[in-house]
Amino acid sequence: MADFTITFLPSRESVSAAADTTLLDAAAAAGLPLEAPCGGQGRCGKCLVKAAAGLSEPTDIERRVLSPSQVGEGWRLACQARVTGEAEVLVPYSSRAFKPTVLIEGAAREIEVEPNVRKQSFRLPRPSKDDARADLTRVMDAIGEGPLPPARLAPVRDLPRLLRSNAYHVTAVVAGGRLVTVEPGDTCDEAYGLAVDVGTTTVVAYLCHLPSGELAAVASDLNSQAQYGDDVISRIHAATSSEEDLLGLSSAVVTVLNDLVERATHKAGIPATAIYEIAVVGNTCMTHLFLGVPPAGLGRVPFVPSFRAGQTVRAADLGISVNPAASVYVTPCIGGFVGADSVGVILASELYRSGGPRAAVDIGTNGEIILASGGEIYACSTAAGPAFEGATISAGMRASVGAIDAVHIEDDVRYRVIGDARPRGICGSALVDAIAELVRVGVIADSGRMVGPQEADSLPEKVGRRLVENENGTEFVLATADEGYGGEAITLTARDVREAQLAKAAIYGGIELMLEQVGAAPDDLDELLLAGAFGNYIRRESALAIGLIPSVPMERIRSIGNAAGVGARLLLCSVSERVRAEELARRVKHVELAEREGFYDRFADAMMLRPLPAEG
Amino acid sequence: MADFTITFLPSRESVSAAADTTLLDAAAAAGLPLEAPCGGQGRCGKCLVKAAAGLSEPTDIERRVLSPSQVGEGWRLACQARVTGEAEVLVPYSSRAFKPTVLIEGAAREIEVEPNVRKQSFRLPRPSKDDARADLTRVMDAIGEGPLPPARLAPVRDLPRLLRSNAYHVTAVVAGGRLVTVEPGDTCDEAYGLAVDVGTTTVVAYLCHLPSGELAAVASDLNSQAQYGDDVISRIHAATSSEEDLLGLSSAVVTVLNDLVERATHKAGIPATAIYEIAVVGNTCMTHLFLGVPPAGLGRVPFVPSFRAGQTVRAADLGISVNPAASVYVTPCIGGFVGADSVGVILASELYRSGGPRAAVDIGTNGEIILASGGEIYACSTAAGPAFEGATISAGMRASVGAIDAVHIEDDVRYRVIGDARPRGICGSALVDAIAELVRVGVIADSGRMVGPQEADSLPEKVGRRLVENENGTEFVLATADEGYGGEAITLTARDVREAQLAKAAIYGGIELMLEQVGAAPDDLDELLLAGAFGNYIRRESALAIGLIPSVPMERIRSIGNAAGVGARLLLCSVSERVRAEELARRVKHVELAEREGFYDRFADAMMLRPLPAEG
Repeated sequence: MADFTITFLPSRESVSAAADTTLLDAAAAAGLPLEAPCGGQGRCGKCLVKAAAGLSEPTDIERRVLSPSQVGEGWRLACQARVTGEAEVLVPYSSRAFKPTVLIEGAAREIEVEPNVRKQSFRLPRPSKDDARADLTRVMDAIGEGPLPPARLAPVRDLPRLLRSNAYHVTAVVAGGRLVTVEPGDTCDEAYGLAVDVGTTTVVAYLCHLPSGELAAVASDLNSQAQYGDDVISRIHAATSSEEDLLGLSSAVVTVLNDLVERATHKAGIPATAIYEIAVVGNTCMTHLFLGVPPAGLGRVPFVPSFRAGQTVRAADLGISVNPAASVYVTPCIGGFVGADSVGVILASELYRSGGPRAAVDIGTNGEIILASGGEIYACSTAAGPAFEGATISAGMRASVGAIDAVHIEDDVRYRVIGDARPRGICGSALVDAIAELVRVGVIADSGRMVGPQEADSLPEKVGRRLVENENGTEFVLATADEGYGGEAITLTARDVREAQLAKAAIYGGIELMLEQVGAAPDDLDELLLAGAFGNYIRRESALAIGLIPSVPMERIRSIGNAAGVGARLLLCSVSERVRAEELARRVKHVELAEREGFYDRFADAMMLRPLPAEG
Repeated sequence: MADFTITFLPSRESVSAAADTTLLDAAAAAGLPLEAPCGGQGRCGKCLVKAAAGLSEPTDIERRVLSPSQVGEGWRLACQARVTGEAEVLVPYSSRAFKPTVLIEGAAREIEVEPNVRKQSFRLPRPSKDDARADLTRVMDAIGEGPLPPARLAPVRDLPRLLRSNAYHVTAVVAGGRLVTVEPGDTCDEAYGLAVDVGTTTVVAYLCHLPSGELAAVASDLNSQAQYGDDVISRIHAATSSEEDLLGLSSAVVTVLNDLVERATHKAGIPATAIYEIAVVGNTCMTHLFLGVPPAGLGRVPFVPSFRAGQTVRAADLGISVNPAASVYVTPCIGGFVGADSVGVILASELYRSGGPRAAVDIGTNGEIILASGGEIYACSTAAGPAFEGATISAGMRASVGAIDAVHIEDDVRYRVIGDARPRGICGSALVDAIAELVRVGVIADSGRMVGPQEADSLPEKVGRRLVENENGTEFVLATADEGYGGEAITLTARDVREAQLAKAAIYGGIELMLEQVGAAPDDLDELLLAGAFGNYIRRESALAIGLIPSVPMERIRSIGNAAGVGARLLLCSVSERVRAEELARRVKHVELAEREGFYDRFADAMMLRPLPAEG
């Protein structure tokens, strides 16, 4: 018998099929399995497809299951229709048993793309005497969703004219099973979403093509809430003291986001109205301020968030300039200082999978530590302070052009500058490097004390000459005034070392207490994951040398990049991940470090600049 | 043993109970049965009540089921707590197995009051180390609803400050299981809803107290959409020809409604913000225009509505000035010309109950006929035109002060005027009376022809003298110029008789065709219900005499008042009735009279002014 080419729409996958093959079999052969819960017996009506030619006549079974108007429009049951010639076959979303998958860089695995927002286009039958269904019913029937009513009035208002002025050829946009808008013609491919990581310092927006889950553009900027204070405590204070400041904090981040929308959509060459959904992660304070919710309980013990579950709100209500029908999903948080960003880290790192103890550390202004062990997940926050982000270090700066980002000492200091520029300051990874190297060569004792110039004799000569004493106390010159941008030397002060010590003690002490919680020692850790931008750039050797992280074999330490941002992308592209996020937020056990017995002792011990714990 | 008085709050029902009686039993004795699906074994935790004193100490079972903070706050399981003294016991809504009932005038029965919107007040436990639940979680747990998230962002934003500035004593407003707003203190009794009947000519608003279902005030006004045309056809034309007119039609009815809100709340002495929900009925065109949805498919065959299912939208989005959290429920319609008002008629008349054939006729500009028979319900609309509302009758007017509303002829004409004023015109009921009487005395033949003055000889002398001939043709003087307001005579013209004939033929023909649909004769009707204002005032004898309605024994004809308005009240006060309404809208079979064979013949036969059908 002859073979015919069957092309499946909208993907245009094609397959060669022998005459008399059912479309159900042909689709499976093309790698596009269809829904067929009844086993292809023509009872369930789930394998609905549409074709104009190339198929056998509708069977009695089809005439029973389908309405006369459906038959008239070319709708078929794929399990009944058989190949008789070349055919183009439209497979609606609801009939597909396959979903595309995507690998999001930084995520541990491929995920099935199943966005909350999806588009379906239809050429609907026109009303007739036998089919006087309401306009809305006509569309809802075609979508084939449950009886959920439209989320907004707009599509109900737009529909009557849209249908009639476009020959009943329209695209329905469905979010969470509800019709949110209708567009003329077929716009299925123009469907984007934005995954946003609202950091205390930086906001990053990932523009994703929803049907494929692929990244179309990235844009980032500083969080302009910084005008209200660098850390969350100042912002909580501002937001709860004055209604005006709450509004100011909220609109600051919305303004940044609108700018990122503009830049990302410009890069991708699409209109902002092609964005139909936004998924947001951030620490608890950030998600509260983003929604304009006063973080009234976050300012004092017992650090009560105002909301914990994920919130879905209209983008327009927040003043975000994307499609008017778009909604914003704000990821749930775990506790007062363990936010939606930690949920993102858990999703990206798959810490929820069972196995030996595994920990993830996100080193930011608020360090978050997540420990999975024996089927339980624990999370805590630790007030590391912004030292590793450069804020409390005299020559500290962010990891941008001009920042010293690596330091090595042999006979003298060697450093690397981002962008091959003259150095302007040092960023977090270089701070850890510098301290580790200075401890190694003896400039800094493991107690954190910096030796004075008068004690320089035991040091390599060129290193010793870099110690200076001035009105600020002892300083170590990393880059001389000759080398520095604008003729300024870059120095590390004794005080800088103390700041770094406090920060690292908060992180190390937190990890140790969390491990004790599950009766494990650092060496029991199967894996130690470092999240966040800092986690990406830090030299593991230096971090281990100064006891910022516990001594585990190097191969068990892994950087997982901006895991919070990856989590946001997972949440944008997959409703299953959203369900998981909501479950996680309820399930993860929130540990309040400050309430743990021995926390302050542990913290004091962790101040030591050497590999920790002291005896392996 | 001693007996103690137990008082249940908030209703303050009290009962005398012997010492050691469980509160579960005491509540049942007071006529307030509580939820106890576990049979009072302390397992389900559903019989939660709260009391400060007069009860036994919490049992081990209670300490297991309740949280320490609940126990501390005085929460008890009614099945475990035993009477030891006088006690005041708060029974939250969620623990009650009883619901109040209300008899809505015009409805066939008492209904259980179970409004979609309800309020619950709480004195919540404050956050503590052992209870660091999020603010929103704290409230949602107290509401005890499922996991439905809040419908709006506003309560999430308001909650943190409301809780802290009111000692955690707040009232939650829940609509459809979702938190819509939070108020300080206990405002449970201040909960109102508005049931609205948007008629083509008149808008009526019923202000109801939601917890009791009782009527607090009524206000009505003309529908100012009339500036776009008196009938729905003109308004459909306007709304679909111009976007401006669509907006104008929509805002016209919103303006009227806002005015009615102001008047009704003023009468009841409450603020407009005490209204938390609005339920709207109206014909299909009215509900479309109310929502600003273009009735694009209603202007021509096959009369496709834009939506059919009930729609819930924010009142604020429609510009209605009630509580900002309020929503508007627009009742589903059955078909293009059988609207939400007909759903209201079916609910109010309980036509959905099985039994012999029963019909309801709502005589308005669009007459709607609903027939229930053998478990099926059929509905049709019939273009009666506005004759019975006075619009196409030369001296026609609405049933207001100055309208002749009843006519009787013996030796001469006797009439009654509304408000004991000088007559200005005649309303529908008098039109039917006048024609019936003039046919009886021979002024009008049963073909509808009015005799000329020259044929007056066979008439009673004073009656005959009232026949005049002028440039408009023959007229019959009902009230002379001496009697009429402003010296104007009130006459019935030959042409008026033709208009009334057309209107009544449309109604009678419709009823007859509907009966044929189920193989029944008029005499088979168990009941014939007349709905609408006209149905209330019409004299059944006159209606039967001219064949406006089929000849059935008088006792089977019953006026059911403004059944559409009653339906709106049922839908406001009972979610069960809403479920029923949605089912009815899907289930009722919509009959297009014009498509029925023999419709026009039937219509012509029904023009005869005599009891119909011709032979009983």
